[in-house]
Amino acid sequence: MPNPLHVTAPEGVPCVDYSREFDAPAAEVFRAHTDPELYRQWIGPRGLETRIDGFDCRSGGSYRFVQRGAEGGDEYAFRGVFHTVRPDALIVQTFEFEGWPDVVTLEYSTFEDLPGGRCRLTGRSVHPSVESREQFLSTGMESGMAEGYERLEELLTGRPAPEGA
Amino acid sequence: MPNPLHVTAPEGVPCVDYSREFDAPAAEVFRAHTDPELYRQWIGPRGLETRIDGFDCRSGGSYRFVQRGAEGGDEYAFRGVFHTVRPDALIVQTFEFEGWPDVVTLEYSTFEDLPGGRCRLTGRSVHPSVESREQFLSTGMESGMAEGYERLEELLTGRPAPEGA
Repeated sequence: MPNPLHVTAPEGVPCVDYSREFDAPAAEVFRAHTDPELYRQWIGPRGLETRIDGFDCRSGGSYRFVQRGAEGGDEYAFRGVFHTVRPDALIVQTFEFEGWPDVVTLEYSTFEDLPGGRCRLTGRSVHPSVESREQFLSTGMESGMAEGYERLEELLTGRPAPEGA
Repeated sequence: MPNPLHVTAPEGVPCVDYSREFDAPAAEVFRAHTDPELYRQWIGPRGLETRIDGFDCRSGGSYRFVQRGAEGGDEYAFRGVFHTVRPDALIVQTFEFEGWPDVVTLEYSTFEDLPGGRCRLTGRSVHPSVESREQFLSTGMESGMAEGYERLEELLTGRPAPEGA
């Protein structure tokens, strides 16, 4: 079994909280969030390919990436700015799916080492309203995140996810 | 009477909503938010002086400013990044008081013209938690905002606020 992704959406508050452990140290999981060549290899669900248009991952930098199916089809673009990038510890950034213009979320990602060369990633997405959070959740965001993190762990450990995971 | 500031803090949701009308067009009120030389003249409560450390007000830019009393004393620094800057219409930016590190809010400011050369500014501050919103409100944020917007209107109209306003 892969490490599970835990997602909670507290009633009435426009946030999504999540956490996941990785069989890799915090510094490596952090680097997979800040290095565009690594990031494009895991972000999003399986079957999508990611093109990085810009990725200046430092406090005050910005990013944009575009995803589409390996067979072609529609493109989905995402962009934002990095408010805080603190090595191996914290990223605070904005996030917008350009298909839903001006619905911007603030994303906190905290990285902490665990014993045995493992780590925990803890995230909070703060939406501009409860309605926008519900809209995001209804798109299958949770399974897309879970697949992305499985790809990330495969990338770092060289281990494919088990059959049926 | 100056134009009033309306502030609401919906129960259980970590947001502060506000609106204020100005006796000036949207383009002018927008410019007072994006031009650092204008911005430093009105942001914050009366009696504080503002020094701009950086103010690159465009989508993907960042800013930092420092305030202190005209007589000296402690300094208060604020910083953030601009996610969207759409001329005369919308600013979406992050905001952090460096004295409360890592408590980052997402700020929406919408500008719309009204008849008679007037306009309405509508804002939403999205906090990372209800607790952080309550902490901000307890600092007298609302009266500081109201004074700042009075200074802004004075700056644009050349009219001082009435006695006792």
